[in-house]
Amino acid sequence: MAKKKDVLKRQFKRHKKVGKAPGTITYMGHREAAETKVTIIEYTDSLHKIHYPGDVGQIVAHKDTPTTSWVNIVGLSDESFIEKVGFHFGLNPLILEDIVNTQQRPKIDEYEDYIFGTFRMVYINDNNELIGEHVAMVLMQNCVLVFQELDYDVFNGVRDRISAKSGRIRTKDTDYLFFALLDSIIDNYFVVLEHISHKIETLEDELYENPTPEVARNIQQLKKEVLKIRQWIFPVKELVGRLIDSENPLISKDTKFFLRDALDHSYEINESLQIYREMAMSLMEMYMSNMSNKMNEVMKVLTIMSSIFIPLTFIAGIYGMNFAHMPELHWKYGYFLIWGIMIVVFIGMVFFFKKKNWL
Amino acid sequence: MAKKKDVLKRQFKRHKKVGKAPGTITYMGHREAAETKVTIIEYTDSLHKIHYPGDVGQIVAHKDTPTTSWVNIVGLSDESFIEKVGFHFGLNPLILEDIVNTQQRPKIDEYEDYIFGTFRMVYINDNNELIGEHVAMVLMQNCVLVFQELDYDVFNGVRDRISAKSGRIRTKDTDYLFFALLDSIIDNYFVVLEHISHKIETLEDELYENPTPEVARNIQQLKKEVLKIRQWIFPVKELVGRLIDSENPLISKDTKFFLRDALDHSYEINESLQIYREMAMSLMEMYMSNMSNKMNEVMKVLTIMSSIFIPLTFIAGIYGMNFAHMPELHWKYGYFLIWGIMIVVFIGMVFFFKKKNWL
Amino acid sequence: MAKKKDVLKRQFKRHKKVGKAPGTITYMGHREAAETKVTIIEYTDSLHKIHYPGDVGQIVAHKDTPTTSWVNIVGLSDESFIEKVGFHFGLNPLILEDIVNTQQRPKIDEYEDYIFGTFRMVYINDNNELIGEHVAMVLMQNCVLVFQELDYDVFNGVRDRISAKSGRIRTKDTDYLFFALLDSIIDNYFVVLEHISHKIETLEDELYENPTPEVARNIQQLKKEVLKIRQWIFPVKELVGRLIDSENPLISKDTKFFLRDALDHSYEINESLQIYREMAMSLMEMYMSNMSNKMNEVMKVLTIMSSIFIPLTFIAGIYGMNFAHMPELHWKYGYFLIWGIMIVVFIGMVFFFKKKNWL
Amino acid sequence: MAKKKDVLKRQFKRHKKVGKAPGTITYMGHREAAETKVTIIEYTDSLHKIHYPGDVGQIVAHKDTPTTSWVNIVGLSDESFIEKVGFHFGLNPLILEDIVNTQQRPKIDEYEDYIFGTFRMVYINDNNELIGEHVAMVLMQNCVLVFQELDYDVFNGVRDRISAKSGRIRTKDTDYLFFALLDSIIDNYFVVLEHISHKIETLEDELYENPTPEVARNIQQLKKEVLKIRQWIFPVKELVGRLIDSENPLISKDTKFFLRDALDHSYEINESLQIYREMAMSLMEMYMSNMSNKMNEVMKVLTIMSSIFIPLTFIAGIYGMNFAHMPELHWKYGYFLIWGIMIVVFIGMVFFFKKKNWL
Amino acid sequence: MAKKKDVLKRQFKRHKKVGKAPGTITYMGHREAAETKVTIIEYTDSLHKIHYPGDVGQIVAHKDTPTTSWVNIVGLSDESFIEKVGFHFGLNPLILEDIVNTQQRPKIDEYEDYIFGTFRMVYINDNNELIGEHVAMVLMQNCVLVFQELDYDVFNGVRDRISAKSGRIRTKDTDYLFFALLDSIIDNYFVVLEHISHKIETLEDELYENPTPEVARNIQQLKKEVLKIRQWIFPVKELVGRLIDSENPLISKDTKFFLRDALDHSYEINESLQIYREMAMSLMEMYMSNMSNKMNEVMKVLTIMSSIFIPLTFIAGIYGMNFAHMPELHWKYGYFLIWGIMIVVFIGMVFFFKKKNWL
Repeated sequence: MAKKKDVLKRQFKRHKKVGKAPGTITYMGHREAAETKVTIIEYTDSLHKIHYPGDVGQIVAHKDTPTTSWVNIVGLSDESFIEKVGFHFGLNPLILEDIVNTQQRPKIDEYEDYIFGTFRMVYINDNNELIGEHVAMVLMQNCVLVFQELDYDVFNGVRDRISAKSGRIRTKDTDYLFFALLDSIIDNYFVVLEHISHKIETLEDELYENPTPEVARNIQQLKKEVLKIRQWIFPVKELVGRLIDSENPLISKDTKFFLRDALDHSYEINESLQIYREMAMSLMEMYMSNMSNKMNEVMKVLTIMSSIFIPLTFIAGIYGMNFAHMPELHWKYGYFLIWGIMIVVFIGMVFFFKKKNWL
Repeated sequence: MAKKKDVLKRQFKRHKKVGKAPGTITYMGHREAAETKVTIIEYTDSLHKIHYPGDVGQIVAHKDTPTTSWVNIVGLSDESFIEKVGFHFGLNPLILEDIVNTQQRPKIDEYEDYIFGTFRMVYINDNNELIGEHVAMVLMQNCVLVFQELDYDVFNGVRDRISAKSGRIRTKDTDYLFFALLDSIIDNYFVVLEHISHKIETLEDELYENPTPEVARNIQQLKKEVLKIRQWIFPVKELVGRLIDSENPLISKDTKFFLRDALDHSYEINESLQIYREMAMSLMEMYMSNMSNKMNEVMKVLTIMSSIFIPLTFIAGIYGMNFAHMPELHWKYGYFLIWGIMIVVFIGMVFFFKKKNWL
Repeated sequence: MAKKKDVLKRQFKRHKKVGKAPGTITYMGHREAAETKVTIIEYTDSLHKIHYPGDVGQIVAHKDTPTTSWVNIVGLSDESFIEKVGFHFGLNPLILEDIVNTQQRPKIDEYEDYIFGTFRMVYINDNNELIGEHVAMVLMQNCVLVFQELDYDVFNGVRDRISAKSGRIRTKDTDYLFFALLDSIIDNYFVVLEHISHKIETLEDELYENPTPEVARNIQQLKKEVLKIRQWIFPVKELVGRLIDSENPLISKDTKFFLRDALDHSYEINESLQIYREMAMSLMEMYMSNMSNKMNEVMKVLTIMSSIFIPLTFIAGIYGMNFAHMPELHWKYGYFLIWGIMIVVFIGMVFFFKKKNWL
Repeated sequence: MAKKKDVLKRQFKRHKKVGKAPGTITYMGHREAAETKVTIIEYTDSLHKIHYPGDVGQIVAHKDTPTTSWVNIVGLSDESFIEKVGFHFGLNPLILEDIVNTQQRPKIDEYEDYIFGTFRMVYINDNNELIGEHVAMVLMQNCVLVFQELDYDVFNGVRDRISAKSGRIRTKDTDYLFFALLDSIIDNYFVVLEHISHKIETLEDELYENPTPEVARNIQQLKKEVLKIRQWIFPVKELVGRLIDSENPLISKDTKFFLRDALDHSYEINESLQIYREMAMSLMEMYMSNMSNKMNEVMKVLTIMSSIFIPLTFIAGIYGMNFAHMPELHWKYGYFLIWGIMIVVFIGMVFFFKKKNWL
Repeated sequence: MAKKKDVLKRQFKRHKKVGKAPGTITYMGHREAAETKVTIIEYTDSLHKIHYPGDVGQIVAHKDTPTTSWVNIVGLSDESFIEKVGFHFGLNPLILEDIVNTQQRPKIDEYEDYIFGTFRMVYINDNNELIGEHVAMVLMQNCVLVFQELDYDVFNGVRDRISAKSGRIRTKDTDYLFFALLDSIIDNYFVVLEHISHKIETLEDELYENPTPEVARNIQQLKKEVLKIRQWIFPVKELVGRLIDSENPLISKDTKFFLRDALDHSYEINESLQIYREMAMSLMEMYMSNMSNKMNEVMKVLTIMSSIFIPLTFIAGIYGMNFAHMPELHWKYGYFLIWGIMIVVFIGMVFFFKKKNWL
């Protein structure tokens, strides 16, 4: 329950903004989140440095260096800091608004000298809950700005590849870094899909063994998660497609090649989600059918017990009557005869139910 | 119930118009609504005045002033007044018809020297009912005409920003005002979505606790509301898109940038509504599954009680028979033996049902 | 039932035509319909005459007069008459076939010097049945030919506006007349939608009060009506759209403006039908859920009665046994003690069911 | 059952072909079908001859005559004969493969000097079963080749029109013959639709009167038939549309006019099938709801009988007890008093159930 | 169960790759699979040789020979081997990644001097399980590289045609070989469809005879298989379509003709899958309806038995009472009279149920 409410609640901080002017920079997330932390990874083919800048000036210095700089900003609750960064990097106020709007729908906007994108980074947290984290990224000539709400390790793989010079990342330009970050966001969806797939399997097994209302509730929860992820990933394939078709010089032809791969992956994720959605609906159907089965079983026990013993009780009732003249009562073997009749009736009923396959 | 009927009734004043010529100005709303009230907010970067014009002449005077004027007309039941305003502002009669037609589907029509649009302003009223208010807006060179049926405060945020010089509204042109109004209409949809989201949560909780027919009815009501809002917001994304693509000089390139933001929001609203629709359908399914659970529980109680006591009653019935020769009746401990047998049967049945997990 | 069969039967006179050559003029309607009646309304801004022509010659005379003529032909069973009219007005035989084919799907075909269209005129007849009447219209330079199967009053509004000089119809050209007729056909759909909306409301109320099989049947009937109307209105929006985009000189730019209004209306009708379709499906779901409720209630009564009285009967059965040695039978207050026990059991059961919320 | 299996079986002779080279001419139908019969109808405006050619040479002779020749080949099991015909008429081997592939999906392929099409001819056979017959047609300059698996009379109407000179077929070119044949195939779909419509009506009536499992099975069967026909007719509208847009000189502008009519019909068939599909789903829903009704009725009888007689039996049980001290037993009118009490209980219960509307 | 889990498990080895750089060659399949086996079939019109190359050099030698070479590599677990082959044939690392990624979604990528495609080869294995095997193919000027995970015989038909010189394969170029392989993959889908069709039939029969929970589970399993195959085949029609539209000189116009045939087949497979999906959903509905039928039957037995014997038992209970004054008890024929009454009640009930059609 906790999870569900949380997911829904997060979506609707939105109304805080109603009535404010567009372009107003209003943080939508959990204000109580930790303070803003900035890390800068600067690299070229031969160079690799990590900076922990003390003020905005030290950050902005990386804007125009010829090296590739990855400015990673974690924690978005300090609106004035974000505004300062944005101002110095020459970002449009509308973009700043989208950066701190943690409910922003995934989007990519191309500007003259930078490309801006927001995405949902999904992961399963330690409480086994599905989390959709807001990430904003800005690709400029020589640096990539990344804005994250929380410090989750989705980008660690990229960090490792940079420091270890593995793969081609160190030999490539800034746009490849942008792609690599986007790619690790998309790759992470596969982990969540696996989680969902596993959940479907588990629920299906529980369904057959013990279809409790709890199982129905979990299926319902599963459906919501699938809907949620679909909403987050659905726009991505169009966005990446637009980036590939774009003629913006910031994205090299070479990087587009890699983007096409990311595009393929978002198609695949969408198709899998579609399948999971259908499976979740099937699970509910299976649940209902198993409920019906259980009910059938209950009714059969009732019917068999009643059908066998009600006639027998009637027979016993007959000879419990107190009529003055009931000849059978005085037969010597009347009692045993009646037992015989009752046993025959009993066996007859059992046969009848056997034949009907109810026993 | 009151709400539901109201929503449907409002939609179908329409037939009043059947047979009338197109372009006939026929008010479709509640005639009993209050009288027409006109307010004009006039502003430039340095100026800010509010006028309460006494007659049409004073209104029309604002058409050609170089300042930006927001002419706000509340109450549409006075058809001749609307007609006069329309005539002096040079509006097409078809537009006047759409202004007073409170059932008009959202639309945007571009004319040579003005742009006309009608929208649905949604809000939750004090009785917790969903209301969809008809709003018509005309963007001209130097003024925006707004026609509202009732005086609801959706536009107060814009009024405040104008008077407080907050945001960029005072430094921008008339087309930005038009956008700002449209934007606050769209923003208000998020409030209603939040209301719906909350309703879904509440219904889901009630569903698990106590699935009364009342809950089913509320789910049904919820579905209708979602359908209704979808009908109202659905055309908006296409309309805004057309405005962005239009080459009309009334809309500056700068404002289009903001419109793109509004477009994003309408997409987001549509996607959320789609999700709510699926959730509402799921709720009904959950309701049915909980009903089945309850039924199962009822049947189990019946089956257990019957299965235990019917055989026992039969045994008692046997020894209530009046046969002359029933040896057991005369055994010294016959009565206690029978009690023993009955207790054994009872315990056997209880074990049987325990094993079946019905107890 | 009568209605349903009728609707379906009407659709499938079609097979009468199978094997005939395309262009064969075969009347598809009720041959028993009244004889053909022709009325001609001729008007200009200053002139207004109604003619009841005696023969085809008098009709054709109106083809080339500079006035606007509305030739209204009611009754399509006289194929040779239709053929003669078609020949003199220079109509393509394929068109004549479509005119008398009362099952024709709505269509608009543009020819060099005329535009041909067929539509479904819907109304609710006196038996509260949904009727879809076939109408064919031909727009020529100076006259509009209208072919109707039955004389229903959908066009009376247009007649009145012509005779009363109300609206702009008398000052406009022939194409405006064509539009006005099409517009009144489309407007009439709103009346039927209102009827459907009312039916949905009524059924919903009945559903909660008394979900009889009759109600289910009416929901089923409603679904069919919605499907039927959707089939009739669905092509219209595309047809009107094509007319607006067409470059045919018969349709003036001015009239296209009005057609755009008609287009808006057909979109609105389609959207409403979509909503009604979903509502009708919801009604069936509600019906099923109410049935389940009723069943639950029935089962609860059974379970409560059985669970209370079966154990009590068992107790009574015990002391109806005839064992020689049953000490309790001889206790002085044994009988009253047993009554006490039974009352305790009774109260216990009532509490149990109260706690389960079944009472 | 026989039918269902047949329909499915027919579809999957397909795997016979797996592993064979594309272009291999493999007959997919019932090898046991009758031998190949060839009829040639040759006509011009003034001429009309029917030939029964003895060998392939006599057939091919008609390829280049200036008259219009309709070569009708019934029976496709003789692959070498088909191959010979194909070779002499200059047909691509891929086409020959499609001709004998009786599971071929409807398609139209344009080649330089001929147009090839395959379709499904549907009809209801004498056992009331839905049959989808494979037909292949080749339009050449002066002749139309028709390949049918079985000799069904769908084309008799065309034959009659040619011999009787009715309609315009004798005055038109070869492409009109091609159209006329296609048109009669499409027209025949209406007959099948009528059959389906009738079946829906019948099932609906049965549903209300006596919802046996047999009815459910028939609904299931109906659904499959609708799916089947939809699969067969669905591609046709696109194919005909492509033919209309094609610039192939084999199809005259005049004939395209008629094709547009055929296109309208395929749209109409598709829409009707969509409606039938929804109706079939509704039927199943109605079936389930009627089942629930029946169940409700059964449960009410059980509940009423049990609720009335179980308490009465309990009362009788009380006074069947053998306590030594039971004062009531010795009252003079005790027996009649108890009868009175039981009658009061009985009437009370009846009233209770009347009030609940269960009686 | 084993199957289901397997299918799902296979899909999600994926997460092994998360965090790795794009282009990293990571085998996704069962590492325990057999070692890599390479076979090369080299042929021209007049030549046909089979090579079993010992090292990569012998393989690469075939790259530039003027003959057509089909390099078939079975077993993808040896990543370094694949990498070496890729390097020598000049393949992009991204492609190598896709080759060993056995979960790759079907795709076709065109490069300057080769075309790369991956597909799912489906078959039913010996345990009657649906298997989707990953296949990657590279079309180069003079050779086709095929990468398979397991050695399944889908391509045997092509091998036979090459060795037997049957069909046109020996006279055609390398692109025809590529098509022939793709064609045999697609043809194999028909075998699986037949399997599914057969399964639907079988399940339907079982459904009517004995609707056990096992049947419901099999229907569920069937649904998943249909979803799975749809996911695998769905992209193919778009890919083949793109290949047909491509202007790559590697694909001759002639081969495109054959590809169009393959395109037709993928459409047909998609349509059939759609139908099977609807049928599978219908099966579940039928299952539920049969469950309801069974329940109805059970309830009828219970109701009939209870309704008949409960009143009779009551009558017997009456005359088992011990009132001192019960005149009937002393009537001479009282006992027989009561028997008479009970028989009348019994017959009356039987009639009642007969009339209700419950017996």
